[in-house]
Amino acid sequence: MSEKGAVTVARTVLQQCLRATLQIERGMVIYICFFKGATDDILPKMVSSLLNLRLCESDSGKMVSVAELPGSLLIVPQATLGGKCKGRAMQYHNNISKEDGLRLYGAFVSLCERELTAAAVTVKHGTYGNRQVLKLDTNGPYTHLMEF
Amino acid sequence: MSEKGAVTVARTVLQQCLRATLQIERGMVIYICFFKGATDDILPKMVSSLLNLRLCESDSGKMVSVAELPGSLLIVPQATLGGKCKGRAMQYHNNISKEDGLRLYGAFVSLCERELTAAAVTVKHGTYGNRQVLKLDTNGPYTHLMEF
Repeated sequence: MSEKGAVTVARTVLQQCLRATLQIERGMVIYICFFKGATDDILPKMVSSLLNLRLCESDSGKMVSVAELPGSLLIVPQATLGGKCKGRAMQYHNNISKEDGLRLYGAFVSLCERELTAAAVTVKHGTYGNRQVLKLDTNGPYTHLMEF
Repeated sequence: MSEKGAVTVARTVLQQCLRATLQIERGMVIYICFFKGATDDILPKMVSSLLNLRLCESDSGKMVSVAELPGSLLIVPQATLGGKCKGRAMQYHNNISKEDGLRLYGAFVSLCERELTAAAVTVKHGTYGNRQVLKLDTNGPYTHLMEF
């Protein structure tokens, strides 16, 4: 998590799901946005935090991490998370450049895949820069915000 | 939006949708969480900001506010948005008390309904303190974070 006073360089929103398309079954959805100043250095800590947080309900009702589920992880690039309102519109001046964002997003996805290789977890991910057609079923979206 | 240095007392996540259950059609979903220190004073500004931001795509592809849509607003109380990670678990120590949260949530919903009376917008809302079974279809969740 970003320390008090430190600059936030990435924002993620996490939701539990029963099903989400780009088709995954039970698991977790991560919406991710990188800000100006984000570098590869932060990725290992981000991935470790996000994959090990106990935010998923197992069949027995126990809260476990997505890595402990038989389940899936859906990663959705979501540049709109960097928006700040100006009047009635949103501006995205603090977002990372598209080039750097694409590179960091790719590295983030690869790192998640590597970390979850040994687990019974499938990683699916949206395409950076594309509109995501998303369907989500949840028994409590149980939405969390994590900043790095 | 909360000013730099000011204490954040409410956090909202907004998503565009084509359909969401608690059954609404095209419109917007607002997930809302109040923190310690939140009072009724902030509600008019919150509601005015959230309902007038141009975050919804109309049939013609133009970005309009939810108040300008023929559509619906789904409000979901989401206390998990106040979570901070401690080790591998989330803690919610900064959240408002359940009693005050329920009162503010009710007042927030009423104010949204009042503001949208003249518009062709239906307001649906989840029950405070209950698990929300949510299904969401979107053509781009287009997720935004607003803090107050």
